[in-house]
Amino acid sequence: MTNTIQINQDRLWTTLMELGNIGLNSDPSNGVSRLSLSKEDLEGREYLIRLMKKDGLEVRVDEIGNIIGKYQGMDRKAPSVLTGSHIDTVFQGGKFDGALGVLGALEAVRTIKESGITLSHSIEIISFTDEEGTRFGTGYIGSRGFIGELDEKDLQLTDESGLTYKEALRNGNLNPENYKKAAIKPDQIKAFVEMHIEQGRVLEDNNLGVGIVTSIQGPVWLEVELDGTTDHAGATPMNIRRDASLGMAELMLEVEKIAKQYQGVGTVGKVKVEPGGVNVVPGKAIFSIDLRHGDKEQRNAMVARIYHTVQEVKVRRGLKGEIRVKKEVDPAACSEEIVQVLDEVCKERNIPTMKLACGAGHDSLILSKITKMGMIFVRSKNGISHHPREWTSKEDCVRGTEVLLHTLLRLAR
Amino acid sequence: MTNTIQINQDRLWTTLMELGNIGLNSDPSNGVSRLSLSKEDLEGREYLIRLMKKDGLEVRVDEIGNIIGKYQGMDRKAPSVLTGSHIDTVFQGGKFDGALGVLGALEAVRTIKESGITLSHSIEIISFTDEEGTRFGTGYIGSRGFIGELDEKDLQLTDESGLTYKEALRNGNLNPENYKKAAIKPDQIKAFVEMHIEQGRVLEDNNLGVGIVTSIQGPVWLEVELDGTTDHAGATPMNIRRDASLGMAELMLEVEKIAKQYQGVGTVGKVKVEPGGVNVVPGKAIFSIDLRHGDKEQRNAMVARIYHTVQEVKVRRGLKGEIRVKKEVDPAACSEEIVQVLDEVCKERNIPTMKLACGAGHDSLILSKITKMGMIFVRSKNGISHHPREWTSKEDCVRGTEVLLHTLLRLAR
Repeated sequence: MTNTIQINQDRLWTTLMELGNIGLNSDPSNGVSRLSLSKEDLEGREYLIRLMKKDGLEVRVDEIGNIIGKYQGMDRKAPSVLTGSHIDTVFQGGKFDGALGVLGALEAVRTIKESGITLSHSIEIISFTDEEGTRFGTGYIGSRGFIGELDEKDLQLTDESGLTYKEALRNGNLNPENYKKAAIKPDQIKAFVEMHIEQGRVLEDNNLGVGIVTSIQGPVWLEVELDGTTDHAGATPMNIRRDASLGMAELMLEVEKIAKQYQGVGTVGKVKVEPGGVNVVPGKAIFSIDLRHGDKEQRNAMVARIYHTVQEVKVRRGLKGEIRVKKEVDPAACSEEIVQVLDEVCKERNIPTMKLACGAGHDSLILSKITKMGMIFVRSKNGISHHPREWTSKEDCVRGTEVLLHTLLRLAR
Repeated sequence: MTNTIQINQDRLWTTLMELGNIGLNSDPSNGVSRLSLSKEDLEGREYLIRLMKKDGLEVRVDEIGNIIGKYQGMDRKAPSVLTGSHIDTVFQGGKFDGALGVLGALEAVRTIKESGITLSHSIEIISFTDEEGTRFGTGYIGSRGFIGELDEKDLQLTDESGLTYKEALRNGNLNPENYKKAAIKPDQIKAFVEMHIEQGRVLEDNNLGVGIVTSIQGPVWLEVELDGTTDHAGATPMNIRRDASLGMAELMLEVEKIAKQYQGVGTVGKVKVEPGGVNVVPGKAIFSIDLRHGDKEQRNAMVARIYHTVQEVKVRRGLKGEIRVKKEVDPAACSEEIVQVLDEVCKERNIPTMKLACGAGHDSLILSKITKMGMIFVRSKNGISHHPREWTSKEDCVRGTEVLLHTLLRLAR
């Protein structure tokens, strides 16, 4: 019987568009700005709570602002299957990043409930507070609070106006003094499944609407500084130069080479060359390196190669300098069990799919620390996200939600 | 007899230090700021005119502010041998750039005069107005006016306060309305010899105090823009990226390779990568290329190679973009006759020397358009110029002035 149930496509799309209209800029760019705990975000949160209540879910909002709607299972002692994402956005973002994972989960659970299907495990839909981190400069506040990894200093972070996180939470009628109470016990959760737009072009390039994530790549962010000698570009022959920017150029190409070789990704996105005159040989170069891989050992091998190459370039070009580690997040493997369930669901329902690594960070990366985690990716048009032009077709949203629904049914039965 | 005459070392050094104290900053950096036609420059100009008059030279100041002191030769119809440089400085510059060429010439002529030597040709010492171009954004105003290449729009250039060049000249009691009268007739000049600090480290690396310039490299300044696709650094696999910054990195290394191969110089000094986020694949890169060579054909061959490589990189990496020519100055060969005279003088006086190309621009580049031109380079400590740490030892100043003196004697006899 469960194989024949169908989600309500128009209802899903309507809720996506309704939420997307909250915080929608009136200028032609049509970007959506619902920065965490802003007036627009609070309005979005009210909208979501109304929907959940209308569908008869048990709704609670925890101390850190996570919104949780529960569809009660038969076995009240069994751990819940958790699904969801976030509804805050970056400044001038789109209608799908985060929102699809929350509203898709709601549509899936609503469909299950309407079909009169009873499950052993409860399904809990969660919308995590402040995944994006745009307003207070950090992210994953809700999911970190949820797994008990938040501390007081996070709540002291301030936005541009000087307002602290704690004050912003209080303004949202929340109770940040008791933030530790938001932490759940790991044995209350059976699994977490997040549906999210891909934010890349792999599915599009493969002409697929839905993908199964195998791992979330953990980024290492390095800042490399190379110091040479500033010289006159006309008066200094090539053989006596110590041009820091040329060391940088070699490393930029080496990052690309290493990433290809290890089948990870590597990016030099931020570049500064000093003093920066057309006719001055650069004495200093500072640049970022972002290295990611789904496997921690491989990722660390990439990092080691960079350290080695920086050293080699420094010696060969007579440069000084150093490498500063700015961020180091462990990659997370998705649960093999959930990957298999997702694979079976897609096969069963003739939904063509592929497995792929996830390069961006998500709440699921945080949740993987306490439970089995899985992710469904949905095709992003041109791979664009965090931008008014972010777009996912109705058909793809429906297909992803269908996969989520049948995955929840299997995990919660 | 002329072989035994000696300059007055202390007098040369004293004038260098006295002029260097005009516009000297009182803060510990000890930089010299005599921006063209500023209060400090006008004071420096008065100092120079006083020195010239004290030495019995016929002094005139032309319409564009060039200061010319003449030591009259026997043959009143013979063209003059011209020598000099400039006394304006950049903001926070040093005591030697330009000043050595003017005060060294004055010391040489003073010595000749004191020795009672009569010459057929007159020697004219010239201090050109605004070589540096710091204040009004262009340079060589005096030398361009001197050879008749200035026009009205140069005089309409403004400084940061909005004052025009013309007004600044007027404030210096000059007569810019008649700027065309500053242009001399080429047949009035036999040759131009400029002594200047090297502003590079070639002489220092070769342990030499004095060098003979063979050519002045003409720079071509290109601005290259490469356009690819801005992507998420985590979510975009390497094989589907169109990273503009990697095209730039290849070109930076190619500039180095081409410059070495053609024995010219090539520099990428100004670099901008957009949007510039650590976790964003750069969709745009804009950078400068400065290419110089003493030989115009070779320089153009370097430029052609860059055009070719930009095209190749664009096709291979799927980038768009363009090359904009920002500056193109023809290189100038020094007069072979003067190079030979300089060489003979150094040999005769046992002054070890070498021949080298000049990479920076100088008034002599402008003068080469109307007369035989030669340049004497004097060692710069660490190759530093345009900086308070610019330094040339007294010994090297003396040696350069000695070479200049005996060169003038031969050219003017």
